[in-house]
Amino acid sequence: MNAIILSIGDELVLGQTIDTNSAWLSQQLAAVGCPVSAHVTVPDDQPTIERAIRDSAFQCTFLIISGGIGPTEDDLTRQALAAVMDAPLEMNERWLGVLKDFFAQRGRTMPEINKIQAMIPRGAEMIYNHAGTAAGIYALLSVGDLVNSIRREADVAPTPFGEGDRIRCQVFVMPGVPREMMLMFRRDVLPKVERLTGGAVILSRTLHTFGWGESQVGEALGPLMDRRRNPSVGTTVSGGIVSLRINARFASLDDAKRELETTDAACRAALGDLVYGRDEETLPDVLYPLLTRRSAPRTDLPPYTIATAESCTAGLLAKMLTDVSGSSAYYKQGWITYTNESKSQLLGVPADLIQQHGAVSRPAAEAMATGARERAGSDFALAITGVAGPTGGTAAKPVGTVCIALGHGGGVASWQFLFPGPRDWVRDRSAKMTLTILRYHLLGKPLPF
Amino acid sequence: MNAIILSIGDELVLGQTIDTNSAWLSQQLAAVGCPVSAHVTVPDDQPTIERAIRDSAFQCTFLIISGGIGPTEDDLTRQALAAVMDAPLEMNERWLGVLKDFFAQRGRTMPEINKIQAMIPRGAEMIYNHAGTAAGIYALLSVGDLVNSIRREADVAPTPFGEGDRIRCQVFVMPGVPREMMLMFRRDVLPKVERLTGGAVILSRTLHTFGWGESQVGEALGPLMDRRRNPSVGTTVSGGIVSLRINARFASLDDAKRELETTDAACRAALGDLVYGRDEETLPDVLYPLLTRRSAPRTDLPPYTIATAESCTAGLLAKMLTDVSGSSAYYKQGWITYTNESKSQLLGVPADLIQQHGAVSRPAAEAMATGARERAGSDFALAITGVAGPTGGTAAKPVGTVCIALGHGGGVASWQFLFPGPRDWVRDRSAKMTLTILRYHLLGKPLPF
Repeated sequence: MNAIILSIGDELVLGQTIDTNSAWLSQQLAAVGCPVSAHVTVPDDQPTIERAIRDSAFQCTFLIISGGIGPTEDDLTRQALAAVMDAPLEMNERWLGVLKDFFAQRGRTMPEINKIQAMIPRGAEMIYNHAGTAAGIYALLSVGDLVNSIRREADVAPTPFGEGDRIRCQVFVMPGVPREMMLMFRRDVLPKVERLTGGAVILSRTLHTFGWGESQVGEALGPLMDRRRNPSVGTTVSGGIVSLRINARFASLDDAKRELETTDAACRAALGDLVYGRDEETLPDVLYPLLTRRSAPRTDLPPYTIATAESCTAGLLAKMLTDVSGSSAYYKQGWITYTNESKSQLLGVPADLIQQHGAVSRPAAEAMATGARERAGSDFALAITGVAGPTGGTAAKPVGTVCIALGHGGGVASWQFLFPGPRDWVRDRSAKMTLTILRYHLLGKPLPF
Repeated sequence: MNAIILSIGDELVLGQTIDTNSAWLSQQLAAVGCPVSAHVTVPDDQPTIERAIRDSAFQCTFLIISGGIGPTEDDLTRQALAAVMDAPLEMNERWLGVLKDFFAQRGRTMPEINKIQAMIPRGAEMIYNHAGTAAGIYALLSVGDLVNSIRREADVAPTPFGEGDRIRCQVFVMPGVPREMMLMFRRDVLPKVERLTGGAVILSRTLHTFGWGESQVGEALGPLMDRRRNPSVGTTVSGGIVSLRINARFASLDDAKRELETTDAACRAALGDLVYGRDEETLPDVLYPLLTRRSAPRTDLPPYTIATAESCTAGLLAKMLTDVSGSSAYYKQGWITYTNESKSQLLGVPADLIQQHGAVSRPAAEAMATGARERAGSDFALAITGVAGPTGGTAAKPVGTVCIALGHGGGVASWQFLFPGPRDWVRDRSAKMTLTILRYHLLGKPLPF
């Protein structure tokens, strides 16, 4: 049993879009014990797509296709699949109804060209798209289908295949839009694959850290990162977050689960509270139980409340805090004080303090946090002021200099960091460090850097 | 003339590494007029690599391989190529010398396993690696090589091919490490490809729109999206932004440039001001010249000033506005009024207005914008209030209901939208629509939706 992942789109073979779907799909398939034997990417050209479907279907149990089912003329995947099956495209009335409702809800009439998104090759099944207008397709390709597709291309009469014609490959066609594809894959594709797997499994988990560099994390992990180890531990970095990927390959699910947990515990023992979460968890996610006090010994206390005061990040910190559904339980209000005047006017930062220390200074950050906490009447206030660049740096305060303050019941604490890098990088790291400072405060632990 | 890009590595088909090499190589090849007809990725398994080399070599002029030439046991690309060529691997003494020097300079003796990195199939050429220890390989595969490789796999005696055997494909093997691969590609691979392309070029451009769905954009473009057209026009969607990719394939750079501009103009004529920018340009980027009045007839006027008041987006709008370096010329300050109390306390939204219309209402958005503009003393104020979800929706105001207001010298205008979708989606579209509203106001045009 194996899978091939076929991605379709001019933008991919032209190099205008980096294919992230294939890696994600490979991970999902490996996790249920279905090895991926190839990734193939072809342009929006019908004969090329037909050949890619046929050649891949000969070599795999599951052909996972994404892309080319949009409403426009360059979307040709459904036509290519129908041609390989030698079946006409037929209107799926159920999906047509969904499409019409979709547009009606938005007060619009469905454009004529969207009708193609409800067309399914005869003999195939429609897969519901819970996040977009393109229906997916599930089809079974037999050896006869594939052989006759080659014969037709070579202008040779097709061979009759009978009832006993062997199914060679299960084909799934999904949208190329990652969000739609992921939802459809999890709901309707993966269960069909899992029905055939069973046996050897690869379980994976990712642990996330923020604050140390990759080599520092690697040194702390030591022999856990040995290449021959099973489960294996590898590190990757993205957006300043150093993640540990644990892969456990075992014959039984029980063994894989147990060994994964043992290695997870060993990694956490090596890194302590630097590990803030796993898999899809983000820094804002893990603040939720801490701020609502759901993870506290006493769960009868009301949530903490929090306010923000931002200069260089200009709303990014508040945006991250409120990425979490339910964050209104603790997040109250915030100020974006981009100018010096607004720092004084809105938060009461004394103009002579800014004059003396500069707007990017620990005293200014502390005054912002204190002013925000007083005005919001909140338990905590977080403040950020820094030089995001690319201009505005000085010898004493180069681009990437960021001051962060945390106002709390016992007063106010502040830190100065240097995050050298491009503008979006400086802003992102500043906001993540501020969330990390709050996290360590709520855990009652000192910062590990 | 065409190329296929073949990437080799378990980490790629397992989804642990995202393949960025293929997109980069595609861009480089397109720029010199060599279209890429497929990306193929296979694991570190010698028979699989042999088959991938053979199948691809039949279909392309240039086979660009990366990965699998490291020193360890799982690096099998050179062995697979030698097998397809039916040639032994021979020690390249020149590269062996380079390797020994490399280790000697670091005070180390060359480990025995690194010797394999100097082995080249007989009849192939070594390509110098200026950034690492793995030598690259340049080989010519003839039709006879490929046919006989298939015959050997099927245990059939090879056919003798003579002097006249036609060269089918030029093969380049490069390291998978992006830095080493890029350097080798630019120095030693691209010049050989350019010798055959002889000036034919593909020029690409992307135009971005926001506000219409993909099908609506497609209908407006009409025959411009004809698949046989050159330059071709295709659409893609990402983050609500519908982008038009224009690809012009012509024999000369002059022709490609001229035709690209003509098609660009035709697309803009079909879509009007819906096209907000091209290539790397973002919505915040294109506001810069409008807000600083650099694009105005009179450039002696000072920049406009702007403030923000956000509820459901909680800082995302301000973050986007300030993504642009130099945005402090116009962006002054903002309020994040997540609670009803803070809307009244910080922006003076009357409590009974919220009582009567709800916090998510056009009157509330207008009061937020007016309050922000008065307090900031700015030319413009933008306000957003909505139901980001996943909870909090009602029958009258379902999740995705968003009210946006623009306060300006002439008063205040407001709109209500429905952006149904997940939380991050609702917040992202709300902020982008607000930027779009400001853009149309600065252009002096009515909104096209």
